[in-house]
Amino acid sequence: MISVIILGAGNVATHLFKAFKTSSEVSVIQWYNRNLDALRPFSNQVEITNDLNALKDADIYILAVSDDVIGELSSKLPFENKLVAHTSGSVSVYDLDKKHKRAVLYPLQTFSKDAKVDFANVPICIETIDKKSYPLLKQVAKSLGSPTKRVNSDQRRVLHLAAVFVNNFTNQLYRIGHEITEGEGAEFDMLKPLILETAKKVQDMSPFMAQTGPAKRNDKKTIKAHLKLLEKPQHQEIYKLLTDSIQNTHGRKKL
Amino acid sequence: MISVIILGAGNVATHLFKAFKTSSEVSVIQWYNRNLDALRPFSNQVEITNDLNALKDADIYILAVSDDVIGELSSKLPFENKLVAHTSGSVSVYDLDKKHKRAVLYPLQTFSKDAKVDFANVPICIETIDKKSYPLLKQVAKSLGSPTKRVNSDQRRVLHLAAVFVNNFTNQLYRIGHEITEGEGAEFDMLKPLILETAKKVQDMSPFMAQTGPAKRNDKKTIKAHLKLLEKPQHQEIYKLLTDSIQNTHGRKKL
Ligand SMILES: NC(=O)c1ccc[n+]([C@@H]2O[C@H](COP(=O)([O-])OP(=O)(O)OC[C@H]3O[C@@H](n4cnc5c(N)ncnc54)[C@H](OP(=O)(O)O)[C@@H]3O)[C@@H](O)[C@H]2O)c1
Ligand SMILES: NC(=O)c1ccc[n+]([C@@H]2O[C@H](COP(=O)([O-])OP(=O)(O)OC[C@H]3O[C@@H](n4cnc5c(N)ncnc54)[C@H](OP(=O)(O)O)[C@@H]3O)[C@@H](O)[C@H]2O)c1
Repeated sequence: MISVIILGAGNVATHLFKAFKTSSEVSVIQWYNRNLDALRPFSNQVEITNDLNALKDADIYILAVSDDVIGELSSKLPFENKLVAHTSGSVSVYDLDKKHKRAVLYPLQTFSKDAKVDFANVPICIETIDKKSYPLLKQVAKSLGSPTKRVNSDQRRVLHLAAVFVNNFTNQLYRIGHEITEGEGAEFDMLKPLILETAKKVQDMSPFMAQTGPAKRNDKKTIKAHLKLLEKPQHQEIYKLLTDSIQNTHGRKKL
Repeated sequence: MISVIILGAGNVATHLFKAFKTSSEVSVIQWYNRNLDALRPFSNQVEITNDLNALKDADIYILAVSDDVIGELSSKLPFENKLVAHTSGSVSVYDLDKKHKRAVLYPLQTFSKDAKVDFANVPICIETIDKKSYPLLKQVAKSLGSPTKRVNSDQRRVLHLAAVFVNNFTNQLYRIGHEITEGEGAEFDMLKPLILETAKKVQDMSPFMAQTGPAKRNDKKTIKAHLKLLEKPQHQEIYKLLTDSIQNTHGRKKL
């Protein structure tokens, strides 16, 4: 049994705790948060604490706390030479205090407190400094049913950046779709199957091959009509910029 | 049995033909294309023709041809007062020759020749000028298992515009994710579950509620680091513009 202590009580910490509860290889022996209230609902399932000095001995300490405080919290841990992993996409492994065996366990997925998470759909990027820690973290990730990948800090940073494009920015395009349809008495609901299909298509086809539409076809008449239809200048800017981007990718002339 | 004649042999026409083959309420009695070669593979399943004067009598003529030629082809049809529907998102119902009972049957989905289509995931937007044609077209769409919606030309145009955002532009964001990961030795494959989850999330949550990430949090440090990491000026522009758009939506300060 691998013993784990989780630090933090946010989205990632909570989903990790729940997932570890179902694992037969990993046992969460203690859960820390600076504010104990967030942990109380779980106090009958695990020992909780808000005192760093009360932390027990464990195989792995997982720091699922805000990016900005990872370094500081790792320094405050009152022990050394133990395996300490953070869960951030953008923080370097070297931000952890070097008194620890430093590592990263970055779940490349979007977590919200309410939404259920199936860890089979959560690729986990692992980085370790010492070689011995790697198989242990891999076993932990595997016990959640997650695919894993060894990813260094540079690659992880790039994956996190790409995640902003395919998750946050894509979601904002959905939002714009929502605004322009509902604004005209049409229904955003009508677009939902298309949204899903667009995401499914690139599961086994490259986005390059999957592209269609007026920008790729350089259908000037439709592009012009669309720009006229858009009421907000910023939506027009986004339309122009992404049309131009598609045309650069597919070797068409600029607008 | 509702008799249908399809005109055109592209993506939409071909998927419609295949779907109608499985319908017990609709029979495709003839298939027209200006170029007969595209239809030959189906010649043992349906009567094919490239001669407009050979068109039979049918309940509905579906013009699944390029947007630019819908008006012209409808004028060339050697009959009048029959129900003629086009399948375009952006062409007005009034572009059809007024000698016909004019209508639109717009499938709000992305079709490619190879990809399989389940019409249960294809909302069909119906517009008719005369009232009597509406129930007939609705029955046709229902026989494919498709959800249907009465949508006028203005709403349809807006849905088509929104479809460009959530489909073509979103796919281009996937493409950029592909470029920046593979360019740095990371794997685009790692992002696929996130892409799917992002699309699934807005099936029962508004895109407004689903938003997360550095732009929404106004995490200036991460935004700055991401802009530095992006090599192409156009990717930086897209990053800035969509970050700004998210911040406008969520009431944060500008970059
Ligand atoms: N959310 C995602 O989708 C996602 C995905 C992959 C990776 N990550 C990474 O996972 C980590 C946690 O993210 P999250 O979304 O779970 O964050 P979150 O929900 O905002 O939770 C942040 C946690 O950090 C704690 N914290 C903040 N400041 C602290 C301090 N000074 N000392 C001690 N604890 C402090 C908070 O404690 P309180 O409860 O007392 O406020 C809270 O438990 C981050 O590194 C993030 O980049 C997040
Ligand atoms: N593809 C989609 O995802 C999608 C989704 C919803 C709606 N639509 C709409 O459905 C319609 C058809 O789209 P599609 O994607 O199926 O197009 P497509 O694959 O490009 O096929 C176009 C068809 O139009 C025919 N055509 C072109 N010019 C013609 C002319 N002058 N006279 C007669 N026929 C002509 C072509 O004949 P040849 O075979 O001889 O070239 C071909 O059969 C369009 O209005 C489009 O906006 C498409």
